[in-house]
Amino acid sequence: MEEKIIGLLKKHQGYLSGEELSQLLKVSRQALWKHIQSLKELGFDIAAVPHLGYRLVSVPDRLYDFQVYQGLKTKIFGKKILYFDSLSSTMDMATQLAFKKAPEGTVILAETQTKGRGRMGRIWHSPKYKGLYFSLILRPKISLGKAPVITLLAGVSICEAIKDFTAQEAQIKWPNDILLRNKKLGGILTEIKAEVDEVNFIIIGVGLNINNDKKSLIYGATSLRQEKDEELNRLTLFQNILYRFEVNYLLFQKKGFSTVIEKWRQLSSTLGKRVKAYSHKEHIEGEAVNIDSDGGLLIRCDSGLTQKVTAGDVMHCR
Amino acid sequence: MEEKIIGLLKKHQGYLSGEELSQLLKVSRQALWKHIQSLKELGFDIAAVPHLGYRLVSVPDRLYDFQVYQGLKTKIFGKKILYFDSLSSTMDMATQLAFKKAPEGTVILAETQTKGRGRMGRIWHSPKYKGLYFSLILRPKISLGKAPVITLLAGVSICEAIKDFTAQEAQIKWPNDILLRNKKLGGILTEIKAEVDEVNFIIIGVGLNINNDKKSLIYGATSLRQEKDEELNRLTLFQNILYRFEVNYLLFQKKGFSTVIEKWRQLSSTLGKRVKAYSHKEHIEGEAVNIDSDGGLLIRCDSGLTQKVTAGDVMHCR
Repeated sequence: MEEKIIGLLKKHQGYLSGEELSQLLKVSRQALWKHIQSLKELGFDIAAVPHLGYRLVSVPDRLYDFQVYQGLKTKIFGKKILYFDSLSSTMDMATQLAFKKAPEGTVILAETQTKGRGRMGRIWHSPKYKGLYFSLILRPKISLGKAPVITLLAGVSICEAIKDFTAQEAQIKWPNDILLRNKKLGGILTEIKAEVDEVNFIIIGVGLNINNDKKSLIYGATSLRQEKDEELNRLTLFQNILYRFEVNYLLFQKKGFSTVIEKWRQLSSTLGKRVKAYSHKEHIEGEAVNIDSDGGLLIRCDSGLTQKVTAGDVMHCR
Repeated sequence: MEEKIIGLLKKHQGYLSGEELSQLLKVSRQALWKHIQSLKELGFDIAAVPHLGYRLVSVPDRLYDFQVYQGLKTKIFGKKILYFDSLSSTMDMATQLAFKKAPEGTVILAETQTKGRGRMGRIWHSPKYKGLYFSLILRPKISLGKAPVITLLAGVSICEAIKDFTAQEAQIKWPNDILLRNKKLGGILTEIKAEVDEVNFIIIGVGLNINNDKKSLIYGATSLRQEKDEELNRLTLFQNILYRFEVNYLLFQKKGFSTVIEKWRQLSSTLGKRVKAYSHKEHIEGEAVNIDSDGGLLIRCDSGLTQKVTAGDVMHCR
């Protein structure tokens, strides 16, 4: 209902009478009034003038589910969104729901996280209303070895959406960091539940700094606002990320990673660089020369030998 | 306490007086009597004769945690066992506990499962007190790509324990079946929770037919009793499986799969056979020639090309 009211008020630029609105929505004037009140409580500025009716003055800078649904161009991703003003971790909530058979494409979004996490138990700093913090439930029919590719697809999609929206050229640091001018703009966290045979579900978590001001950013991090010097509409960017990600994901499922791999290479800040990779037991240094079809990074060592890294951390050397 | 009482009664072949027993256990005669009663209720036949004391006549054919602890030679595996007379699925319970940070080595064991499952959602038939149905929580520090090796280690360990105990030569059908004389004796189910980077936990489920009589076995399956024509002590076999598995697991973590791979090859019923492999999209036919260090099966096709299969089902052809 909230979605419909906002939709009608947006479409109708001026005032819309209570009578017309309640007829269009097929609810009583009394019920309409209650819905308007709850929208006001959510931060929507709706002017109500006797004999004229209602007019939408402004929408709040929030990512309410019903706002996201409006104009979302996807078929699967984000068709069901659970919105929270605050949550300990969208990953934990998404995992619980995935075990309870939440369908593919379900999104858990929070305006802030009190225990947001990154890879390897690191903390993800989630200042309220400033960034984008969400987890997406996927149920791809792929073997476990292909799972790392999903992280790369997410990276490509986020960079594409940022470029569409802000004309900024974000880059991907293998495997899961989003960089802007070599500073950390976002991160992707991928958690997997699998039988050895096949993936049961994957949760993709995204944390992206959007309207963070300088003091809410940790050292070495940046936000879109810092680089563009203006407040951005998080809602439109979020819808675009979901859309781009779905397109790339469906393409990958249908035709394999080869369709997306070239885009990834173009967006990579890692390829061509000298890197040090730390894995469980290994420490490999050399030039990052390529990624393979499973999403592994190929490093050509000084010995001439090329080694594949599938996990762990990569440092870009000077 | 139950563990201690049974231990003392077992060590002391004849009667042990109530007074001596309560002194050794540092409990009152009254408390001792209560423990003896609860042991009787669990099926322990304990004779109580005035002026003589207590004597253990027989132990029930059960896998009670406190019985398993007695004489268990492991350092990690099975040091904490949760025993259930009946459970829907040991896998589900183990997964819940693993999320709640149950330590490595924790075992969930049930005398029967009402919804026991095998790979790909298949049913595992778990007749009560006849077989061994348990799940083990592991927290290996390995990359996701190495996870399939754990299934192979489990297979090797089960075959070794069976050989120790019954002198029967069980074999492994890649990746997860235990065969005896080409009939199915058991199965291994491996479920993984991971970040792309690393494994958070792995649950290894084992179902093994031990004392099943012919009518409780489905077509193509067998039990140790069927092949040896005698009732077997499930307890000793279970302790031995835990011990063998721990040894192989620690060796693998320390030195890699190469230490176990030769044993696996010796026990494999798949290598050297003509096989058909069904994976997500592929269908590969040829001779199973080897496994690699990630646990993948290498199949040499008629074209001469060798392909690797990491997931799916394998059929042995004639």
